[in-house]
Amino acid sequence: MAGAPIRISDGDDPRVAAFRSIRERDLVGREGRFVAEGTVVLRMLAAAHARPSGFRAEAILILENRLGGLHEILAGFPADVPVYVADRAVLNLIAGFDMHRGVLAIGRRAEAPDADALIAALPAHSLVLAACGISNHDNMGALFRNAAAFGADAVLLDATCCDPLYRKAIRVSVGAVLGVPFARGGDAQALLGGLTRAGFAVWALSPRGETAIAQIAPSDRLALVAGTEGEGLPPDILSRFHTARIPQKAGLDSLNVATASGIALYQMALLTGRIG
Amino acid sequence: MAGAPIRISDGDDPRVAAFRSIRERDLVGREGRFVAEGTVVLRMLAAAHARPSGFRAEAILILENRLGGLHEILAGFPADVPVYVADRAVLNLIAGFDMHRGVLAIGRRAEAPDADALIAALPAHSLVLAACGISNHDNMGALFRNAAAFGADAVLLDATCCDPLYRKAIRVSVGAVLGVPFARGGDAQALLGGLTRAGFAVWALSPRGETAIAQIAPSDRLALVAGTEGEGLPPDILSRFHTARIPQKAGLDSLNVATASGIALYQMALLTGRIG
Repeated sequence: MAGAPIRISDGDDPRVAAFRSIRERDLVGREGRFVAEGTVVLRMLAAAHARPSGFRAEAILILENRLGGLHEILAGFPADVPVYVADRAVLNLIAGFDMHRGVLAIGRRAEAPDADALIAALPAHSLVLAACGISNHDNMGALFRNAAAFGADAVLLDATCCDPLYRKAIRVSVGAVLGVPFARGGDAQALLGGLTRAGFAVWALSPRGETAIAQIAPSDRLALVAGTEGEGLPPDILSRFHTARIPQKAGLDSLNVATASGIALYQMALLTGRIG
Repeated sequence: MAGAPIRISDGDDPRVAAFRSIRERDLVGREGRFVAEGTVVLRMLAAAHARPSGFRAEAILILENRLGGLHEILAGFPADVPVYVADRAVLNLIAGFDMHRGVLAIGRRAEAPDADALIAALPAHSLVLAACGISNHDNMGALFRNAAAFGADAVLLDATCCDPLYRKAIRVSVGAVLGVPFARGGDAQALLGGLTRAGFAVWALSPRGETAIAQIAPSDRLALVAGTEGEGLPPDILSRFHTARIPQKAGLDSLNVATASGIALYQMALLTGRIG
């Protein structure tokens, strides 16, 4: 159980300095720290403590009238995680905006695994989502939400992807960023080469892909590669790997990358019997 | 071809009054008017002129250096649609925010069809997306984008849905709001009852739906019903119509409504041979 609630009545209290002006500070370097926002995400952060995920809570800040309803979730944190409570006026003063959700935590990722280590640890039957150049935090969060929904074993992001530990990405993912193992960094070709060497059938998703996504060959180890919404995947990836398309009406803008990845992961999970 | 470009050099010029402070004014009543933003949406608005859609452009306002690249699209508008051009400083002054897209139009929907008229006009083989209580403009835009991608013949929205002609919804839909026929209003039960009487198999989408979406019976006339993200569809709808689920890993938050609708429409389009 997390620590006994500590009441904060002064917005300048140094014990809650980490929560100050969270919206602005979230944009700068954070030394592995991240902001978890809302009940669902807090629950995922508690669950991460029970796994060797490297994610830990450093402190929790809650609107006083939310405390009663969060008892069960708070029970999932270690005793050395402080729980601060404040009324709405003080909470908004600290956070720097109207925190209507009333539930905040500062988390930290101790060690960030690299892609090779993550790939080496994958089970014999695996589904992996790889992404290149995803720069929008909403799309990043949605990719993780979809990966979790369809049981992907890992998410691999190249160095040109944005940070999934950004506050908004975590929120949009409904905490899936803290649940699905991921690595971020390196070059897309190297990443996908690593998957190929590990026996993965790598399928690059493109509106002009060769194979309809429902027709791809089932494989014990499947990887889906999603690219940026505007440009799509670069030619050097489309030419080197299998390509799959989601059939759609001609002459229209392609699907949003979040929806497209959701459809492709759904179809891959169905093909390999992960869902039924 | 739209009118010859008219140069605007004063942000207070009464000819561009309709474009003034667009971001704020978009939130209030607009007498059937809407704001189309960006090249892709402008193209859809031009295309709407060629159909009996009821959508018409009232005026277009463009950043001067974008004019050359828009010639082909502007050729799709009637000559009585004025085209105003301005430099960036004047454009931002008019719009009230940094209009980096540099392409704006004021559109108007002359007549808004009611659901009964829309249903009566549907072809024998039809796919319809119905939605209840969608209050988020991003989700609304995404629903239309998905409906267009999988060839839905109409979108029916109950009275508790937000307006798809809101600027952001149109933008997120990449203009699909101007392409897929839709009606908004009335009670969800009445709406779905109308579809049933017209021979539609109505499938309500829910994480606890009875039938996996890939297993639903094909039908010449299929309707998918999507509900709000938080609450989902109300019990009186789930109990009266068929229910379908998207299989996913247990114990997780359900998919985002945009992604869920995309997967369900994809699967329905595949089942009925609309895509392949």
